[in-house]
Amino acid sequence: MTIVGILGAGQLGTMLADAIHALGAETRFYDPEASAPAIRRFVGGMSGPWTDLAHLRAFAAPCDVLTYEMEHIDTDGLRSLDIDVVPSLDVLETTQDRLREKRFLRSAGLPHVAFMEATSPADLVTRGREFGFPLIVKTARGGYDGKGQWRARNEDQLDLVAQQLEQDLGPRFACAMEAVVDLEREVSCIVARAHDRSVQVFPVFENAHEHHILDWTLVPARISPAVARRVQAIARTTAEALGVVGLLTTEFFLSRTPARGSESEPVDGIHVYVNELAPRPHNSGHVTRRATSLSQFDALARIVLGAPVPEPTLRGNGYYCMGNLLGDVFAGQTELDLGGLACHEELLEIMLYGKLEWAPRRKMGHVIANACDADRALAAMRAIRGSLTLTPERPSEPPPTQR
Amino acid sequence: MTIVGILGAGQLGTMLADAIHALGAETRFYDPEASAPAIRRFVGGMSGPWTDLAHLRAFAAPCDVLTYEMEHIDTDGLRSLDIDVVPSLDVLETTQDRLREKRFLRSAGLPHVAFMEATSPADLVTRGREFGFPLIVKTARGGYDGKGQWRARNEDQLDLVAQQLEQDLGPRFACAMEAVVDLEREVSCIVARAHDRSVQVFPVFENAHEHHILDWTLVPARISPAVARRVQAIARTTAEALGVVGLLTTEFFLSRTPARGSESEPVDGIHVYVNELAPRPHNSGHVTRRATSLSQFDALARIVLGAPVPEPTLRGNGYYCMGNLLGDVFAGQTELDLGGLACHEELLEIMLYGKLEWAPRRKMGHVIANACDADRALAAMRAIRGSLTLTPERPSEPPPTQR
Repeated sequence: MTIVGILGAGQLGTMLADAIHALGAETRFYDPEASAPAIRRFVGGMSGPWTDLAHLRAFAAPCDVLTYEMEHIDTDGLRSLDIDVVPSLDVLETTQDRLREKRFLRSAGLPHVAFMEATSPADLVTRGREFGFPLIVKTARGGYDGKGQWRARNEDQLDLVAQQLEQDLGPRFACAMEAVVDLEREVSCIVARAHDRSVQVFPVFENAHEHHILDWTLVPARISPAVARRVQAIARTTAEALGVVGLLTTEFFLSRTPARGSESEPVDGIHVYVNELAPRPHNSGHVTRRATSLSQFDALARIVLGAPVPEPTLRGNGYYCMGNLLGDVFAGQTELDLGGLACHEELLEIMLYGKLEWAPRRKMGHVIANACDADRALAAMRAIRGSLTLTPERPSEPPPTQR
Repeated sequence: MTIVGILGAGQLGTMLADAIHALGAETRFYDPEASAPAIRRFVGGMSGPWTDLAHLRAFAAPCDVLTYEMEHIDTDGLRSLDIDVVPSLDVLETTQDRLREKRFLRSAGLPHVAFMEATSPADLVTRGREFGFPLIVKTARGGYDGKGQWRARNEDQLDLVAQQLEQDLGPRFACAMEAVVDLEREVSCIVARAHDRSVQVFPVFENAHEHHILDWTLVPARISPAVARRVQAIARTTAEALGVVGLLTTEFFLSRTPARGSESEPVDGIHVYVNELAPRPHNSGHVTRRATSLSQFDALARIVLGAPVPEPTLRGNGYYCMGNLLGDVFAGQTELDLGGLACHEELLEIMLYGKLEWAPRRKMGHVIANACDADRALAAMRAIRGSLTLTPERPSEPPPTQR
């Protein structure tokens, strides 16, 4: 039997493992965290730092191929292993560093929000003044779910960010500044690219974030067909330019006004900018478990195992809404009260991730609802989520601004 | 976290575990076979005989509740454990013995094919002559997938069956004789009954067997609405009469001619007979993973964890066809060639069970196809299955007769 080694043992790895098992292969997990869900669930999991070469070698020995479910991996150790990693470590190293990622977008001629680099606190303040306010500062490394991001409205605020970053990063100081986008919508698009370079593009997802963390995903996205085609075409070109074999999720900003300093041709009055890339299953892609004929996990499993990937088509005519369950809904309890699940006919999936410890904004699970239109799918998701919390669900948010 | 102990670690247990994990609980497996799929996949699995009390006690110790995925379990050891078993051991003991099961059907007034019991070889021959030919002999214990079943057209054949059974069973000789049914169709219906006695009934599945092993399942079944209602009503009454908490699958024979010696009122010209019962997830229920809003595994997971079970509704307007992948398709290879999976847009699921060893008629996996009508769903399932085999798929079988 083929054995696939998975780096990272969270919810994405767990659901990927289910898809790999369904194709008759086995999995082994490696994660720095010994209590990670897939380490605790599946046999043969190993825990250790990314820098422990002996451990990594023992982990990789029985595996035929490696893949990863997270980007915050030190690649030096992996480089020394004699085994295929899918997607490649080159791809991973580009996307795990915001500056490298932005430079790639620029060199590939892909539409993105104009940015400027800074390599020291003084540099940041001087160039920021030049760049103009308001602006967003993003560290090159270690950013996800809003970590490593600050918004500065003026020089005073930028000065504070520079001080903070000097403390946090010291000599590894490296960050990007970019203009604030007046957001119309955020969308993402997953591309599956196989070893033979054939490409399949998933439908476009509409995403809403709260406190920088994905709150819900809706598919199909509420955008015009021309905008959807543009988004899908850019996602496809990005995966090809990056040379990804595996999955690539591209996150986009859509805006009615051009971002300061950025070139872009609007389509149906909408400017489309690539925001960031993730060469792995994505939390916005959970919705594919129910919405499309093939899930993102199925697609990656097939690529890793060398099986062909058919076109992922949307199932039925309705809308699907995935809502994240953050630690907040657990409200300090160790188990969720499932009694509220009684009569939600729109509920297609509830998936709890088996994390041992809750934290306020930690992703603990998700639900997927299906309804005939977008409003009903969103309302159903909120009702289901509301029935699982002990505190009432907050009313729907105003239209998103820059996160 | 709640821990559910699962007795039996085959494909049904594995898929049940996925559903239990999705609700935030953990699982532990027990199976006499150390290489059973779920023992090899999930942490904490134990292997030992059903009669090893010390082993069973150690297994049950961390569990909050037990359930089972198979009926061929020696219940004596389990009786001595101080833990809830869902469905109850009384239910299991009734359904694991064909004579007890048939006596239950008779005493509950449920429509079934008339039968006669025999407790010795001489008894079998004498009563068989009285009962009339052709007849089916079924052993009380150990029967599944056609094992423990013989068809006798005359006294000579019955005499041979009696000799065979005397050798196999010795002093534990016990069997039933029943009339041969002129089959129009075979169907099954799964009922989920919760601790609060609320009942949910799944849509009726149409099943086809080959060599007594489930070949495919189609939903919705090609029967009239009145017949479907009758089947669902009988399935519901059966679960209630048996006092099941958990799942009960009821398999039915449908016939245009009344079975010899059996009483039944036809509906739309169709006589409906209960054939056999299984108080667990059922292979015909794989189709619910894609066809209904809630799968059989989701329903059992909720009952075991005390969560409410909503009504399982059919998704969309089309037909779903599940086709079993028997060991034959592997043709002696250790891995299936997945290259044929390229372009079957009707394919919604391929699930391989991770069994280490293939055998000609062993259930190794299944596929589920979806299409706008029954013929297309069946044809798609055959085409997908055909693309996975090394030998061409046989043409579709003539209408089924008694299996």
